[in-house]
Amino acid sequence: MTTYRIAVIGGTGPQGKGLAYRWARHGHEVVVGSRASEKAVDVAEQIAQRVADEGGSPAVTGATNDEAADGAEVVVLAVPYAGHDQLVASLAERLVGKVVISCVNPLGFDKTGPYGLDIDGSAAESAATLVPGATVIGAFHHVSAVSLWSEVEYLDHEDVLVCGDSAEGKAVAQELARAVTSRIGVDAGALRMARQLEPLTAVLISINKAYKVRSGIRISGL
Amino acid sequence: MTTYRIAVIGGTGPQGKGLAYRWARHGHEVVVGSRASEKAVDVAEQIAQRVADEGGSPAVTGATNDEAADGAEVVVLAVPYAGHDQLVASLAERLVGKVVISCVNPLGFDKTGPYGLDIDGSAAESAATLVPGATVIGAFHHVSAVSLWSEVEYLDHEDVLVCGDSAEGKAVAQELARAVTSRIGVDAGALRMARQLEPLTAVLISINKAYKVRSGIRISGL
Repeated sequence: MTTYRIAVIGGTGPQGKGLAYRWARHGHEVVVGSRASEKAVDVAEQIAQRVADEGGSPAVTGATNDEAADGAEVVVLAVPYAGHDQLVASLAERLVGKVVISCVNPLGFDKTGPYGLDIDGSAAESAATLVPGATVIGAFHHVSAVSLWSEVEYLDHEDVLVCGDSAEGKAVAQELARAVTSRIGVDAGALRMARQLEPLTAVLISINKAYKVRSGIRISGL
Repeated sequence: MTTYRIAVIGGTGPQGKGLAYRWARHGHEVVVGSRASEKAVDVAEQIAQRVADEGGSPAVTGATNDEAADGAEVVVLAVPYAGHDQLVASLAERLVGKVVISCVNPLGFDKTGPYGLDIDGSAAESAATLVPGATVIGAFHHVSAVSLWSEVEYLDHEDVLVCGDSAEGKAVAQELARAVTSRIGVDAGALRMARQLEPLTAVLISINKAYKVRSGIRISGL
């Protein structure tokens, strides 16, 4: 198995924390990043404790987002869309030459429910524009944050959809999907497919609301 | 089982023909619509012959799009996005008071592959704006036209996602999904979710190309 040193930017949020747990459990070296290092250290300790309790040997630490990105081979953006562009711009130099995986969902909510924000392209494409020297990949948008942390089993009824313009970059994200679903992620095409994958989360939230479930996406026919 | 009299506008195209076959086989009364009635009659005869060969008693005829819409309770828009708005406008009076199901996918293709066209909203919402007196529902975007016609089995590894602003209208489309997947369709939220469902087809086409498959969507967790 290939193991990576992964920085999870925004790793104290529910999606980031859940992914960090799954990767730490799977043997990857994980740095939880946050604006405040104390919060990141606290979450890293929770994850480490849990993985150790489950019999694993976790390599997980906490740091500021900047420090986390510095030491990583793979940087995962698990941040809210509000402030996304400024955060990516602030990290830009640290992301050059790295695989950057965006899980960002630009969503709005009103009385009708969730909807995809009317943005120019997608969050992943914005990151690619802001950091031309990084290999930006879109993935892990649709996996329930609650399921990532509250369940112990692999989420093997779901697929992780991966989009990007670099086959090598996609291969990294597809490999990292194993920690979540037990299978490699699905190659879902070019980076611009993030325009479809990111707001698709609004559909899943609508389904969750209607059926009182935690839904996910599975690709049939593979 | 509730049976409907369904007009399939653009029923001579691959998606329309495949859906018409599945509905005729399932006991619905189907009118295949086309600009030219001869072509519609020809396709209706192919469908009728096939369903009869399979031991069914098909009620399927062909007509112009106008005539098809006139006699139907449910009107399915299975037309290319190019010319969609003009066609819907031309049918407007005939659609008032009816459930109108849009399967339209506004997609473009270039050397990178398929992509969602940058349109204002979605085809389904355009139809709803053009015909305020109709109950417009989005559904059946992701089912492979080839699978609909070339396979005999239910496509029970896939889901039909249904969006709309009318619970009654959604219930009709959800019921009609039985003929395709053997299960009722999934309530995927408000009509504006069509902005996500329509171009999601670009992702499926990307997957089909990468893996040489005919992919579809399944919702996990239900």
